[in-house]
Amino acid sequence: MIGITLPDGSVKQVESGTTPMDIARSISEGLARNVISASFNNHKVEATTPLTSDGSLVLHTWNDDEGKQAFWHSTAHIMAQALEELYPGIKLTIGPAIDNGFYYDVDLGSHTISDKDLPAIENKMIEIARGKHEFKMREVSKSEALEFYKNQDNQYKVELIENLEDGSITFCDHDTFTDLCRGGHIPNTGIVKAVKLMSIAGAYWRGDENNTQLTRIYGISFPKQKDLTEYLNLLEEAKKRDHRKLGKELELFTFSNRVGQGLPLWLPKGAALRERLENFLKKAQKKAGYEMVATPHIGQKELYVTSGHYAKYGEDSFQPIKTPKADEEFLLKPMNCPHHCEIFNSKPWSYKDLPKRYAEFGTVYRYEQSGELHGLTRVRGFTQDDAHIYCTPEQLDQEFKDVIDLVLYVFGSLGFENFSTQVSIRDLSKPEKYIGDVRTWELAEKAIISAAEDKNLDYVVVEGEAAFYGPKLDFMVKDALGRSWQLGTIQVDYNLPERFDLQYKGSDNEMHRPVMIHRAPFGSMERFIAILLEHTGGNFPLWLMPEQVSILSLSEKYEKYAEKVLNLLENDEIRALVDNRNETIGKKIREAELTKVPYMLIVGEQEEKDGTVSVRKHSEGDIGTMTVSEFSDMIHAEIQKESVEFKV
Amino acid sequence: MIGITLPDGSVKQVESGTTPMDIARSISEGLARNVISASFNNHKVEATTPLTSDGSLVLHTWNDDEGKQAFWHSTAHIMAQALEELYPGIKLTIGPAIDNGFYYDVDLGSHTISDKDLPAIENKMIEIARGKHEFKMREVSKSEALEFYKNQDNQYKVELIENLEDGSITFCDHDTFTDLCRGGHIPNTGIVKAVKLMSIAGAYWRGDENNTQLTRIYGISFPKQKDLTEYLNLLEEAKKRDHRKLGKELELFTFSNRVGQGLPLWLPKGAALRERLENFLKKAQKKAGYEMVATPHIGQKELYVTSGHYAKYGEDSFQPIKTPKADEEFLLKPMNCPHHCEIFNSKPWSYKDLPKRYAEFGTVYRYEQSGELHGLTRVRGFTQDDAHIYCTPEQLDQEFKDVIDLVLYVFGSLGFENFSTQVSIRDLSKPEKYIGDVRTWELAEKAIISAAEDKNLDYVVVEGEAAFYGPKLDFMVKDALGRSWQLGTIQVDYNLPERFDLQYKGSDNEMHRPVMIHRAPFGSMERFIAILLEHTGGNFPLWLMPEQVSILSLSEKYEKYAEKVLNLLENDEIRALVDNRNETIGKKIREAELTKVPYMLIVGEQEEKDGTVSVRKHSEGDIGTMTVSEFSDMIHAEIQKESVEFKV
Repeated sequence: MIGITLPDGSVKQVESGTTPMDIARSISEGLARNVISASFNNHKVEATTPLTSDGSLVLHTWNDDEGKQAFWHSTAHIMAQALEELYPGIKLTIGPAIDNGFYYDVDLGSHTISDKDLPAIENKMIEIARGKHEFKMREVSKSEALEFYKNQDNQYKVELIENLEDGSITFCDHDTFTDLCRGGHIPNTGIVKAVKLMSIAGAYWRGDENNTQLTRIYGISFPKQKDLTEYLNLLEEAKKRDHRKLGKELELFTFSNRVGQGLPLWLPKGAALRERLENFLKKAQKKAGYEMVATPHIGQKELYVTSGHYAKYGEDSFQPIKTPKADEEFLLKPMNCPHHCEIFNSKPWSYKDLPKRYAEFGTVYRYEQSGELHGLTRVRGFTQDDAHIYCTPEQLDQEFKDVIDLVLYVFGSLGFENFSTQVSIRDLSKPEKYIGDVRTWELAEKAIISAAEDKNLDYVVVEGEAAFYGPKLDFMVKDALGRSWQLGTIQVDYNLPERFDLQYKGSDNEMHRPVMIHRAPFGSMERFIAILLEHTGGNFPLWLMPEQVSILSLSEKYEKYAEKVLNLLENDEIRALVDNRNETIGKKIREAELTKVPYMLIVGEQEEKDGTVSVRKHSEGDIGTMTVSEFSDMIHAEIQKESVEFKV
Repeated sequence: MIGITLPDGSVKQVESGTTPMDIARSISEGLARNVISASFNNHKVEATTPLTSDGSLVLHTWNDDEGKQAFWHSTAHIMAQALEELYPGIKLTIGPAIDNGFYYDVDLGSHTISDKDLPAIENKMIEIARGKHEFKMREVSKSEALEFYKNQDNQYKVELIENLEDGSITFCDHDTFTDLCRGGHIPNTGIVKAVKLMSIAGAYWRGDENNTQLTRIYGISFPKQKDLTEYLNLLEEAKKRDHRKLGKELELFTFSNRVGQGLPLWLPKGAALRERLENFLKKAQKKAGYEMVATPHIGQKELYVTSGHYAKYGEDSFQPIKTPKADEEFLLKPMNCPHHCEIFNSKPWSYKDLPKRYAEFGTVYRYEQSGELHGLTRVRGFTQDDAHIYCTPEQLDQEFKDVIDLVLYVFGSLGFENFSTQVSIRDLSKPEKYIGDVRTWELAEKAIISAAEDKNLDYVVVEGEAAFYGPKLDFMVKDALGRSWQLGTIQVDYNLPERFDLQYKGSDNEMHRPVMIHRAPFGSMERFIAILLEHTGGNFPLWLMPEQVSILSLSEKYEKYAEKVLNLLENDEIRALVDNRNETIGKKIREAELTKVPYMLIVGEQEEKDGTVSVRKHSEGDIGTMTVSEFSDMIHAEIQKESVEFKV
């Protein structure tokens, strides 16, 4: 008999040789139907692997990441079989699961495969899947394994096996197909109900451009046809919402090869959007007792020697800026905290003055490889909605809670209702990794967890994920397409106060070290705007829209009246423009719809006579005729409704 | 007979040997009394120099710069004589006039001079001055000159003479004193009525630290005692208004040696002040049809190769930022225009879209030697209130006028009533120095001059002062102490549109080159705030004040009421703070006066009972008791009065 510990802590005594599937079945038939893979003592096993020792077991279904990985990895085997059958003589190399699906790299020899061949491969795969062939692992000796692939003249697998240790080598069989494989499969091919091969790309063997170029085929699979349809719709929708595409269409930002990759240039509408977001946060921050400061984008070497960043400045970074003075060096700032510490240090403080909360929309620069740059989400210069709070250890608890309130206010105001958080704490077994004494860490970790509890956050605590300088709380939001994005962060820091020798005079008249909190609700303005674009598809809340109203004249005759309406709206601080072109009203409406302007006002003879406007709402259509001032009131009421004030 | 042309163009026929003073006398006795120096054919001469050829003559009085220079240079001779008499055996080196006074560098040998010796030297100088000794120039041969100074064992003058050409060497005598001198003196020592020696400093011979260290004595002199008194008062006042001192006292900005010299850190009150100024200009710019953009603080080498700045990047600049990629280089941006040109280039334009007016508070970096840094007026990183207008050549005239209106609005709103302007145009004799064709230059110069006329500006046209890329208009303001500061600039640019190949489609359907205007009314935010501090002594207009109101409680008993008043004011968007310290009201008032807060509200028992406040105005005292809402109305009325809206 062996003891199997389940995630809820319960222990099942079962006979040696019992499989994870057996255990699932012993719990419930429903569970057994859904189990597709398992982990035993933190190692991937098959649902059908006999367990022969005590250990902890986690059962995986399609709904968790490990389940999906097994599902997609198994589908890669099915694709490999299909390819071998359709293209005899090809050589397989590796075929892993990835974040969304799987791929297999194959040496096609004299064959070629193009996009138009993919449906036939998909069909073959489905045919194989329907056979409900079991995936069966078996151990093979190194010599056996080598012989198998030498017979196939497959130098790739031979090379892989040569690097493996005898006794640790396994093959996986299903149907007529065999592959070198470490394991982690679903019980049988029949579970795979829907397959889509996404694309074909070139890939060098082992990623080295001196090696043979292989053909990589990307695919994804699902346990239900409906899941595939949804996924493809999501992809289609994501393509439409790609912030790079929307940013261009809405004229928010641009890039220039001369200025440099990864350095966005904000066009007028984008700069105004960004400013509205900044003003929104500034207003809330003011209420929350923050003070804005402003610092340069560079700092002298000495600053970063003090902060400790200089030592971490490597060859993969923007290099230091030299000056005519020997030994003088400046760095593009990688973060704003050292500058803020110097501001804190510019005068003496008493405990009565704390907390000090310095906020800045501070631009930082980090060198990214050009291949890793992506629109506004991976850039080389970005602006953090940064702030640093300097407080007494006793104030940490309350300050942390207040910061959470602010972050939640920001997310709520911008329509991110769906988010989770992670509390990153020390690895207790490695105290040497962390700066600061144990008691302050304990206090800080407790403060964060109690704050997360207090604020009813959906949180997980992850040990060992804290920075060396302090524990932190990270926010991940889900956008409208269900994609997760890391946004804001709140971090406790014991390191910089030490390195910058920050002090305040306590009520005991002694000098003390303040605690520092780093926080950024948006994270980076660039990244946040990218996510907001993809989340809303460019249909921002009304208060944020670059243009709120487009006035469409029925013909050039009504230009004067259109301008009058524009003037009235502008006096009411409504952002509007006039389309007076000599085009049909139908064309004007269609084009206005594309710009996502929330309201269109149509003006013609009747409207001019009555002093009214005919109102159309974006993607909804006509909502009636009203006076300009009624329309203005309606707009302001809508904005009012959206704009909840931050309360402290 | 020779012909002497006077500045008004008239020509006087006089006998050869006539002196400038004779000519002055022939014009009027009053003029003759005031003439102290002259320029003949653009060379300095004495008022007593006989003129022996045709030429143009300018007579100088104390009221022009050249007159002052002669006055101060002559006083340096008097000081040298006084020093030789008081400290026998010292060796003179050089003694020029400077912007405010003069200095003389002397090798004191075994003597020493300290501040307490200065009055005795001043007395001796006045004694010499009263002798009304004439300054008389005479030519000497090189050998004669060398012998004179070798006899005095003065290696410095010997070294100077050795570098001069025989035949060009002159001495100046007055009383018993003789000095090597090129000329440019007042007629006699008696005109110097007041002398003040300001300070003593060390200075290396020829500015080279490997040479002997000399003693430099700084002084200034005036034709009237009253002028000296006024000057010393002005210095005293200027010291009080020194923006570095006020910036510290008012907690506006600070510097950190770690961050780096010349890189200001804006403290909360300073950052808020700056933001108010920015918002003020943004509002006016919006009305004037500008659009804000935002660009990074760095740009790739290619950008500056295109703009032409890269070629001018020398060893005295911030050096390029290298990256892991070979040949890739970024520069801290020295100006914003190349980025804005790339924004203009991001889409095609029609003549109907122009003018485009891109504005940005854009930070630029320029390396200055550490010795040249000075508070906020000479820094290494500063933010320009920059904008670039892209227009058709036909629009240039109107655009230029509109920019002048904006600049005048800015100056007027901030209390700079006293300013002059300079129109810088081509040197017509050197057409090769300038880019762009002659016709466009003519148009642009005409446009600027006609705009200056039209706007009734006090302007001078200076030939040859235009940049190679276009003519410009610069604004110089006079502050409350009468000091001149260069502020805003408006420049026409034909160069960058060419280099960036900027284009628009004209009404003729052909592609055309737009004209570009650079403009910055403040010039730099840092410099402007420095000047505003020195101009106002920190007593900014009410709308700009960091704190508008200080609420002083009569005792801690009234803390609650004080907080209530604070709340009411904050709800009315008035910036206020409470002084609840356990101090006497007298001390609180005195301290509030020092912070320059415009209004103090005293609250005690009676005020709490009546719901009122007792109002004191900064530097004026008690102005009566009123309700909080009456006070709030008063403040808003005052701000309203100050804040004239920009009208287009």
